[in-house]
Amino acid sequence: MLSPVCDTPIRQGFPAKKIRPTMLTVHHLNNSRSQRVLWMLEEIGVEYELKHYQRDPRTMFAPPELRTIHPLGKAPVVTDGELTLAESGAIIEYLADRYGEGRFLPPPGASPERVRYNYWMHYAEGSAMPPLLLKLVARRLESAKMPFFAKPIAQTMQSSFIDPQLRLHFGYIEAELAKSPWFAGDAFSAADVQMSFPLETGGQRAGAKNLPHIRAFLERIHAKPAYQRALARGGRYDYAS
Amino acid sequence: MLSPVCDTPIRQGFPAKKIRPTMLTVHHLNNSRSQRVLWMLEEIGVEYELKHYQRDPRTMFAPPELRTIHPLGKAPVVTDGELTLAESGAIIEYLADRYGEGRFLPPPGASPERVRYNYWMHYAEGSAMPPLLLKLVARRLESAKMPFFAKPIAQTMQSSFIDPQLRLHFGYIEAELAKSPWFAGDAFSAADVQMSFPLETGGQRAGAKNLPHIRAFLERIHAKPAYQRALARGGRYDYAS
Ligand SMILES: N[C@@H](CCC(=O)N[C@@H](CS)C(=O)NCC(=O)O)C(=O)O
Ligand SMILES: N[C@@H](CCC(=O)N[C@@H](CS)C(=O)NCC(=O)O)C(=O)O
Repeated sequence: MLSPVCDTPIRQGFPAKKIRPTMLTVHHLNNSRSQRVLWMLEEIGVEYELKHYQRDPRTMFAPPELRTIHPLGKAPVVTDGELTLAESGAIIEYLADRYGEGRFLPPPGASPERVRYNYWMHYAEGSAMPPLLLKLVARRLESAKMPFFAKPIAQTMQSSFIDPQLRLHFGYIEAELAKSPWFAGDAFSAADVQMSFPLETGGQRAGAKNLPHIRAFLERIHAKPAYQRALARGGRYDYAS
Repeated sequence: MLSPVCDTPIRQGFPAKKIRPTMLTVHHLNNSRSQRVLWMLEEIGVEYELKHYQRDPRTMFAPPELRTIHPLGKAPVVTDGELTLAESGAIIEYLADRYGEGRFLPPPGASPERVRYNYWMHYAEGSAMPPLLLKLVARRLESAKMPFFAKPIAQTMQSSFIDPQLRLHFGYIEAELAKSPWFAGDAFSAADVQMSFPLETGGQRAGAKNLPHIRAFLERIHAKPAYQRALARGGRYDYAS
């Protein structure tokens, strides 16, 4: 686990330099938001240790061991020396700030680029994910394991409230991606890493990959060598919540 | 609407200086997250115009006019010259950065203070609000207006999943507030403004105000003159979503 995938031939030529922090560990839950953290680290080119945790296959909850690392016991969590940090937006920004040498985010301040970057950093979990979570809950209510009368309720919730909200959000993201290839503008940034999770989830859970600019964005990120290395290390990823 | 409340006697002595941006407008929805933005502006001491929008009393949705300001049509939205900005975390940080002269957030970078500050900025909407949203949805399912068989489903959702998640989050926040009076440490910061919404909502929707450190935090912020001025301008605020 301590020998990073970046030493394998696939890494040849990416990137020139490799930073070795004292002891950076990603507490990784299979098939989860922590996939984004691995991708950010592979983009930066920093060495890290990966600790795997497996969801309970029935409840999808993280195993109790994760609560010994962070009281909420959710993924992702990163430990780096004295620091224990949760919340993907904060983690991705920390890594970009601490190890990214300014390559993955606009300089701090209130410049239009930075404000836009910061908007998407917050929008991903603050606005795009909640209706996707509602969709997941409604789909579970609809499933065969629930009493039959749960089904019409779940369907009404979706048609009257959840699906229109999802269309609103993904229609909006589609229009934004028509203006520039990356969320913060012309250059790839940590905001693209942060936004990847709602787009992958929404691609699967809300038909978002039928929208051409969203599909093109997903294809662009999937083609990135760092994304592929992260996937190879993190394992199966099909966008459960 | 253009004459700010900060010219009234209650403002006497707070703060010494007042900044006049070209044209800062808060698009404010009654009883909503935009209350936080008013509070941040009153803390900074910056002049702003307030535009009121009223929720549909039945659906609680924002009125369609708000979509002419921002495609998502949700509150808060701020316009400042060329800029139109949504997402409360991004707005509050923008205002603190642009007008706050470093008074409301630790200097940028990967210092422990800034990382902690940024964690709470993201945690508020990214982790604390989603279970509170689920609680709201479940409570509506339980209500008299729904078919009788919705009730047991809503109750099972709450007892098996939503309520334990709320206890987990508020227990965690309580423990964190036992360590320091403000979220980023010893000093009040924009993270306290951002965290106020889940705490007010959770106080009402999840019994969080029975926890002593959370209650003390709420009392501390309610006693702040800027908070009171924001409330006087923004109007009734009882933490609907
Ligand atoms: N907003 C948080 C969400 C964290 C979260 O909910 N993580 C999920 C994985 S995608 C999790 O750990 N779920 C399992 C559990 O709640 O036990 C973030 O962006 O990090
Ligand atoms: N994460 C966003 C959430 C924005 C949001 O959902 N706003 C609510 C008000 S608290 C809203 O506008 N609801 C009415 C609607 O969706 O039409 C933020 O923090 O600004």
